[in-house]
This record gives sequence, C-alpha cells and structure tokens, in this order.
Amino acid sequence: MSTNAKADEAAIRKLVENWASAVRARNMDGILANHSNDILMFDVPPPFQSKGIEAYKGTWDLFFKWAPVPAVFDIQEMTITAGQEVAFVTAVMSCVDGADKSRLLFRLTIGLTKVDGKWMVIHEHHSVPAD
Amino acid sequence: MSTNAKADEAAIRKLVENWASAVRARNMDGILANHSNDILMFDVPPPFQSKGIEAYKGTWDLFFKWAPVPAVFDIQEMTITAGQEVAFVTAVMSCVDGADKSRLLFRLTIGLTKVDGKWMVIHEHHSVPAD
Repeated sequence: MSTNAKADEAAIRKLVENWASAVRARNMDGILANHSNDILMFDVPPPFQSKGIEAYKGTWDLFFKWAPVPAVFDIQEMTITAGQEVAFVTAVMSCVDGADKSRLLFRLTIGLTKVDGKWMVIHEHHSVPAD
Repeated sequence: MSTNAKADEAAIRKLVENWASAVRARNMDGILANHSNDILMFDVPPPFQSKGIEAYKGTWDLFFKWAPVPAVFDIQEMTITAGQEVAFVTAVMSCVDGADKSRLLFRLTIGLTKVDGKWMVIHEHHSVPAD
C-alpha cells in the first residue's frame, strides 16, 4: 500500500470514529461535519430511503428518541477500501434500545468521495437482517 | 467527467445489469463472474453476514428457493460513484415472493475494486427497513 493510500485509509478511519463519537454525544454538528448535502441514507427503521442532508438529520432525531442517554453507537469491526477519489467502508456496529436496554447489532456500509482533498460521506446503509 | 471515468461507469453499469440478468436466469456462473473470493455479503434474510464466495453462493441458493421461476430481480434506480480503483453503487431493487407473488422493494449497495484493469465486486449490502 502506498503512503497516499495509507493516509487516505487513516483519514477515513478517523472520520468514521469521530462521527460515531458525535452520535454517542448527540452532537448533530459533529455528525454532519463530513457529510454531503446530497447524502443518500438507507436506515434501519423506515423510511425506505432518505435523500439529502435535512432528511438525514431526521433519521438521527428518530434514533435519539429510541436510544438511551448517553447513546451507545460502537464500531465492532471496520474494513476500509480506499482509492484516490472514492472509498467505501463496511462495519459491524452495536447500539442499545433505551427502553428495554437490549443490544442491537447492525450492518453498516458507508460510501465516500474526496472533494477538494477532503473525504465526504455521500451514502450510508444501515440494516439488520429481515425476520 | 473524463473519458476514463465515463468508461469506468459504463463498465460497472454493464457488470451490475449482467449480474441481475444472471440472477433472473438462476445462472450461478453468471452471478459469480465478477465477484471476489473474499466478498462480504450483508443480505436481506439472515445470516447477519456471509464472508467468502462459498457463503455468498449459499445466499443465492436461499433466494432461489423463495423466488418464482423465472426469478424477478429488477433494477428500479441505480447510481454509480466510480474512481479509478474503487467504486460503489446504490440501487433500489425489486423482487417477487414465489409463494404469494407479493412484490418486495429492497435497498442495495455494491462495493467494487479494479483488479488488473477489471472491476470486481467485493461487497454487497441488501436490505429492507426493519419493522
């Protein structure tokens, strides 16, 4: 792996870790710090899809109603595949239901592009297997 | 968009269309034609994740037991984000339950890398929103 590729992977790892930390802190500015206005979100609960940053913010409002204080939002496994302009991340994540304290594992895929030298999230796909 | 970027996007579009066509035809060789041995699959039904090409094949055996003949597996919307070495695809897909003929819409994200000049699928994430 080249020095540039290592730097890209490190930058993306930090971005995802900072984003998860912002979720735990219910810090919406932190959650949105590296997100595109055109983000496409496929979330665990409905709706089927959320297009654009305002709809994306709405998915977090929903999560914060469900989650305990502080929220649990932990990265269990993460794999980063980064090119020079496009990258994606796969992860196994865990969170906790604020009502019954049960732990929920979910799958996460993140899609990113580099804009003016900075990685930006343009897609997230969160899900659990269907019953 | 450069000529190369257009060529990458066109190659990936054809790859995904050919893959979906192979699913409709229950043609496993066609389904696997551009898939990495190391693919990570997050599918609609359990298991939570399937690692490697043998486990990935198993997810299609399960789908073919559920789907009608011929299978329905249609691309409703598709967006391709391609760099020179890494790309991802987001899509809205539809399929049909072989038992009650009900139509199921699902979300799909595909992750690809270019190996020796050829695009290969190393990740798929298929899901429906949780109840």
